[in-house]
Order: sequence, then C-alpha cells, then structure tokens
Amino acid sequence: MEKIPNIHEDFAEWYQYVTIKAELADYGPVKGTMIHRPYGFALWKQVQKGLGGMIEDDGVSDVYFPMFIPYSFLAKEKEHVEGFAPEVAMITEAGGEKLEEPLVIRPTSETIMYKTFPNWIHSYRDLPLKINQWCNIVRWEKRTVMYMRTSEFLWQEGHTAYATRDGAVDDVMQAANRYESFLRDYMAVPGYKGYKTTGEKFAGADFTVTIETLVKNKKALQIATSHLLGQNFAKAFDITFLDENNTTQHVWQTSWGFSTRALGGMLGAHGDEKGLILPPKMAPIQVVIIPIFKSEEDRETVAKFVSNIEIMFKETGIRFKVDWGNETPGWKFNQWELKGVPMRLEIGKREAEAKQVSYTTRLGQKGTLLLESTLHKAVSTLLDEFHAMLLARAEAFLEENTVDVASEDELVKAIDSGKAMYRVFFKDDTIRAKALQEKYKITPRCIPFATIDQRGPDFITGEEGVPTIFAKAY
Amino acid sequence: MEKIPNIHEDFAEWYQYVTIKAELADYGPVKGTMIHRPYGFALWKQVQKGLGGMIEDDGVSDVYFPMFIPYSFLAKEKEHVEGFAPEVAMITEAGGEKLEEPLVIRPTSETIMYKTFPNWIHSYRDLPLKINQWCNIVRWEKRTVMYMRTSEFLWQEGHTAYATRDGAVDDVMQAANRYESFLRDYMAVPGYKGYKTTGEKFAGADFTVTIETLVKNKKALQIATSHLLGQNFAKAFDITFLDENNTTQHVWQTSWGFSTRALGGMLGAHGDEKGLILPPKMAPIQVVIIPIFKSEEDRETVAKFVSNIEIMFKETGIRFKVDWGNETPGWKFNQWELKGVPMRLEIGKREAEAKQVSYTTRLGQKGTLLLESTLHKAVSTLLDEFHAMLLARAEAFLEENTVDVASEDELVKAIDSGKAMYRVFFKDDTIRAKALQEKYKITPRCIPFATIDQRGPDFITGEEGVPTIFAKAY
Repeated sequence: MEKIPNIHEDFAEWYQYVTIKAELADYGPVKGTMIHRPYGFALWKQVQKGLGGMIEDDGVSDVYFPMFIPYSFLAKEKEHVEGFAPEVAMITEAGGEKLEEPLVIRPTSETIMYKTFPNWIHSYRDLPLKINQWCNIVRWEKRTVMYMRTSEFLWQEGHTAYATRDGAVDDVMQAANRYESFLRDYMAVPGYKGYKTTGEKFAGADFTVTIETLVKNKKALQIATSHLLGQNFAKAFDITFLDENNTTQHVWQTSWGFSTRALGGMLGAHGDEKGLILPPKMAPIQVVIIPIFKSEEDRETVAKFVSNIEIMFKETGIRFKVDWGNETPGWKFNQWELKGVPMRLEIGKREAEAKQVSYTTRLGQKGTLLLESTLHKAVSTLLDEFHAMLLARAEAFLEENTVDVASEDELVKAIDSGKAMYRVFFKDDTIRAKALQEKYKITPRCIPFATIDQRGPDFITGEEGVPTIFAKAY
Repeated sequence: MEKIPNIHEDFAEWYQYVTIKAELADYGPVKGTMIHRPYGFALWKQVQKGLGGMIEDDGVSDVYFPMFIPYSFLAKEKEHVEGFAPEVAMITEAGGEKLEEPLVIRPTSETIMYKTFPNWIHSYRDLPLKINQWCNIVRWEKRTVMYMRTSEFLWQEGHTAYATRDGAVDDVMQAANRYESFLRDYMAVPGYKGYKTTGEKFAGADFTVTIETLVKNKKALQIATSHLLGQNFAKAFDITFLDENNTTQHVWQTSWGFSTRALGGMLGAHGDEKGLILPPKMAPIQVVIIPIFKSEEDRETVAKFVSNIEIMFKETGIRFKVDWGNETPGWKFNQWELKGVPMRLEIGKREAEAKQVSYTTRLGQKGTLLLESTLHKAVSTLLDEFHAMLLARAEAFLEENTVDVASEDELVKAIDSGKAMYRVFFKDDTIRAKALQEKYKITPRCIPFATIDQRGPDFITGEEGVPTIFAKAY
C-alpha cells in the first residue's frame, strides 16, 4: 500500500488522497465537478434519510422546481442578482436554436419558486407555506476541492412563507437548530452557531444564521445556513395575502440549505494519519468482519461462526460487511482503516471455538465480545461510545483552537501561535472586515448565539462591539 | 366547483385540468418545464422508495455523476450523438466567461459515466459493475404535457458492465421485469413488454426492451426502457478488463431508465369524469376522513371517535388525512375525488355512536365497517381489492383496444373503429415503418415477448414477420 500523505503536514494532499483512495469520489471531466461513487454517495443518502426525516417531521413538504431560471427573474431582487450573477452558468442554445432569453441554471431557487408563490398564496389560511427540495445546484468554480468546493453540488433547500415576522424568525431558528442537531447527532461535527455579519449574509436576506466548524487544517467551514428573507422577495415578486381583517399584506419568508459541503466538513473534522474516520450513524459500513484462517478446514469453521453473526446483524440493522477477499488480513486492516469503518471484528478459528469476537475500533479501543443473543447490543453500545468520543474530540479541537483576542497585536500573536479561531469584540462593519481579510486573510465567521448578550470594546477601534469569531475559511 | 372537462371528449383538456386542480403540478416559467407540487412530488417519492428499494435489493449501488458533459464525449458514439444532439441544451458561458468547449446538460449519462469506467474496471473481479442514479435530465421540448413531455424531467438511470454478453442480456431482462412488476404492483399499470424495432431502439444500443401501455385517450405510452448496449460504448470509451486467462476484453453493457413520464401514464390510465384515481400503493393519501356534524356538541363526539381512528391508522401505516375544513361535505367529496384518494370515510354522530364508519371507494364501492381492533386490516383489504380492480380495469382496456390486423385494409378499418393498438405480423424495416407513420400516424411500439415465437406473413408485404404492435403514441 502506498503511503498516505501526512494529514498534519499537508492536509490538502491527505484530503485528496483519502477521498479518492477510499472510493468516496472522483474528479469529473469538467473542471469544478466531482463524481459521487457508491461509498461516498451512501453518505449523502444518510443525510437525505436523517436530516430529510427531521425536515418532514416538522411539516415541510418536498417539491421539485425546474432548474432553468430566466435571467430576468434573478434580476428582480437587487442584492440577490449582485451576489449570484458572477457565478452562474448560462444556457444560450437549446434544441439546436439560440434562445431568446438566456437561462440560468439555479444557483439557488428563491427566484423561480417565489415567482410561483402568488399562485398558491391568497389568504392567511394558505400560510405558513413550507416546502423543501433536494436537488443539484450550480455556482461556477474552476478549482475543485471534493465536497467543499464544486461547481455542481447537491443540497436541500427549504423555503417558507409566514404571515408574521415572528413566525419567520422562529422558522429560521428551528432550521438552524435542526442542522445543529443533525451535525452533532449524526456527523459528530460541533460548531459555532450564530449570525453572519452584514458583509457575509445571504444575498437578499435580512439576516443569516450559520454553523461554523473547524477542519483539521484549521480552516473554518460554513456548513448550514438559514436566512430570514423578510419581505425583500415578497415585495420583488408581489407575494401577498389577505389577513384576518381582510387587509392585503406581504408574506415573511425564510430559506435554509444544507449541502454536500457538509460531508467535506465531516471528513475533514475526523480524519487521521490512517485515513478517514466515519461517525457510525453516517458510515455505510459500521462494522467490517475480517475472517482469519489458514487451512480450508479453519475457513469452514470460521465461515459457520461468521454466518451466525451475519444473521444477527441483518436482523438488528447493523450495517456490516464481511471481507472474504484474497488479500492478507494486514492489507485489509489498512484498507478498512483508510475507508474509516468505525469497527473491525477479527474472527479466526480460536474466536470461533470460544464463540467470541475480537474487536478494534477506528479510535483504537480493543477488546473481545461473546457471541450471545446480545452481541448486537454490545456492538451498538460501542458504536454509540465511538460517536461520543469522536464528538468530544472534535469539540476539544474546536475549543483548543479558539482564542480570545483583545487587540490587533494579540491577533497577530494568535495567528502566529497556530490557533485558528479568534474571538474578538467587533462592531459589525463590512469595510473594516474587508481590510482585516486583506491584511490577515481572516473573515468574520459568525456572531455566536452563546455570547450574543455580551458587549465590549471593538478589538481595534474600541467602539462597542459584540463577540465575533474570525478565522481563515474555506 | 367548476366543471371538469370531459375525459372522453377532450382528454388533453381533462388531463391538464386535473393535474393542476388536484395540485399535482404547475407549469414552470420556461417553456417545456413543470413544477412538482407536494401532492405530486409525493408520487415520485413513492417511486424512489418502491422501485429504488427493488433496484438496491438487486445489488445496484446509487451514485451521482455531474450533469455537465463536454460535447466531445457525446460525439464518441456515432449513433448516440445523432440521436441526442438535436435536443440538447448547451452551456456556452459560465462564471462570466465564454467556455472553451460548450457543455451539454445530460440528456442521459452513458458518455460521462463510461468515460470514467476505465478507471474503475481492470480485471474480471471488478465485474459486474452495477450503478444507478436518480437525477434530472434535459431533452429540449417546446410543448409541455405534464409528466409526459417536459424538457427537464426526473428519472433513475441504471448502468452496468459485465464480462459476458449473457450476463448483460440477463441484466436487461431483470431490469425490464423489475419495471413490469413495479408498474403492476404499485401503479396498477399493465403493458406490453417486448423489443423495440430497429428504428425505435435507443441511440447506441444493440436492442431495447420497452413496456408500452395505453392511456385513456387511446395513445400508447412507452414507459420504461432497458437497453443492451453490447460493446458499442465499451469500444468507443475503451472499457476493457483482463479475463481469467489474462486476455484483454471489452465489457458488455446495459442501461435502463424509469422517469416521471410513468406518472403521466398512471394518471392517464386510471382517471375518470370525476378526476384522478390513484392506486393505493402510490397515493400520498390513501384514506380521507370527512367528519360530519351540525352542532358543536356533535363535533366533539365525532372528533373523539375520529381521534381513535387516527391513532390506529398512524400505528399501522395507513396514509390518511382528516379534513376538518370549513367547506361542506359535498364540496369535500368532490375535491378528494378530483384528487383521486382511493377511499373516503364519512363519520357523523350516528357513526360515532354506533362505533362504525361508512366508506366509499373512488371506484364506487360502499359499505360500513365497525371500529374494532381490526379496522385497519379491513381498510387494507379494501385497498388491496381496489388495486386489483384498478389493474383489472386497465388490463381490460388494453385488451379491448388491441386488435389483430392482417392487411392494410384491416388496419384502416381498425383505426376507423376506434381501436388503439394493432397487432400485425411485421418484418422489421425502418423505412417501411416510417411510411406507415406518415400515412397513418402509427409507429411500431414493440415486438411483445409473449408472442415472440410466432411467425406469419407481413401484413403488407407477405414476407415472414413477427407479431408487432403498432399504435399512435405520445
């Protein structure tokens, strides 16, 4: 087996190597695109199932809108078009003819959806309207970073309309909380949840809530964003309703999205020098079973024992694979470690005779378990512990790398010391944020909810500021 | 309520009316596109769950490939590019720049997938390779017929590579059988399964297997196709493997697809003068409960009784809705009939007191059922019977409208008599098929497997022919 690039010395090399060698993904032939292979796409299916289930349970209905948007729609909301126009892909010819109006491939679906909302919303009884779609999105990129940065990516985008601003604000918070839960409970990815600063919010939103996590290369990654659109689009697209007093009002809207980029965050948050580490709730294979035998007779003894375990795991929903390949056990260990499988069971003649299995987790715990009617429960418990350890590790990494900074000097020191996230008091100001970006390559990542009530002197100007996290970001 | 257009007199009007009024779909702003609303998209989710489950169970893995295909890829297989070039949408500008090579939005994914296969396939041990993706597809259309004909549509496309032709042929048949089962068992849609004639097969295939059904307007609809690609693409894209004797060989390939068009076939196969009729396995709402009351006191009695049923239905997985809306029961009956809900339960004070419910199915059966611990089973049985009736009705329609034709004179008579599908002995010949199309607007739909061994004189030339079904088609 080739040597895996060192994750600490060259994260980018490591990341590219493991995503490809673990057979998660390949580069697409067009710059900026990627191919999701079965092992990698299974991760996205877990998102669709887990997060999708949570979204449905909250009363949001799935829909599908066309991906072609007339350019004129995009232009209806001023900030929106300014934000997205530079990165759209345009269709100018189709069916052998030049089109009268160029079509944009959706960079997000606000405009095409909201153009239709007036047909569906008439009175307060039609509200709230809550819809969601899972689809492909295009924002032009020339440089590909698997999952993190691709010109076509997959996501879900939720869109809602409410009768009141309060209703819409609650919806934004519910969406952000749902994302936070999914990230923690499925992906073992912690992050700072908070408001985007003015310069970083969604093009066309009143405010944006984000979750910012930290990848092993100490770059921040914005994972899931939820936007209060206010009445901006409602006014641009004339989406009104008759309220209970028969008065015409504009609706209040939200949108929120979670994309394949989050998978990049998860892979980058947990990996190590051996390769990927997948959280058990996301892992396509939670347990790999490696039969170990020398003679054909031993093989039969082992096979018989393994088949009992297979039946039990199938019945109890543990996702597993038995690797009967011709390679050596050592090669297989490396391979499944590279692929990030949380738990490995080694089963040889000795184990079969003693009716027990030896386990090793991807975080290094080892032990033996007896094959009793409760083996699956013991395995589930170990997987739950594995998840908790992974999350705790990622939380510690996030915390260790966050530092309070009270002045520009301290910021320089913090950057030099290798810390990644700088918590400062900052008075939101887009021009000053830009200046900091130019000077230090850092951007305001978010104003965390956890410390939103604190006030203190801006770390540069001394004006009243609010705790804000800066970092180098993807 | 407005009057529903007459399904027998003007099917096209009826179809457009019901798809929109039942809130399945809306037209998109760009010609040729449609919007899948929650009630309609739920039908596609059933396809993804039902058919998707069958595909997975057969060992096919889901993947996702980019939708952008360099034009040069398309051109690698001669028949393929001739078939698809006229209907592709082209991206010529992206990210504010003119592209060096125009990109095509996938009209199907053979070329982009197979360009990558050489990276994945090296030896016979890598075969068979079986992958599938659910995605959007673009084939330019200016005229929209909801579901049946749209420039962007949704589908699944399966792609496989085998070491032998036999393996690939078996795969094509397995795919076609899977589609046939899904169509019958979920959609209650029967059809003729058979080979496409040479002129109608997939561009780049050795042969195509299709299922052809009949819509209420007596037009045939091609629903699901499975292609033996042979070694055509393998040679164009140089997909080879080392066999067990260490000899390099080209792989044998298949592809097969099922699209949102099938939903159009289902809607058009079952509807009637009152609107849609949805097969229970597909229906987002299988049972609608209409509470009937006059006084507030009655309302409470009814509500209490209904809540018991709700608990039972939730636990037993019956998809239901209780309509507490302010409209009259009569209005509600019409509305839910239009929406095609298979079964309606009416519950008033009398029913609540007698602990029973009155039911009416969308096919007109009526009766009462007692609220016992087995009510859900009685409902399930009625829904199963409903499915069987719907399928039998559609089968009878298909049969009644198929007629044996032994000469051109008989064909003319059959067309005049209003029959829809003409079973003739035909010697496959693309030029003669074209001539028949120009003269009678009919095309060869398929060479049914059921009668594939029969031979007889071609209905026009007298040469030896095989039973072939002609019809006017979508």
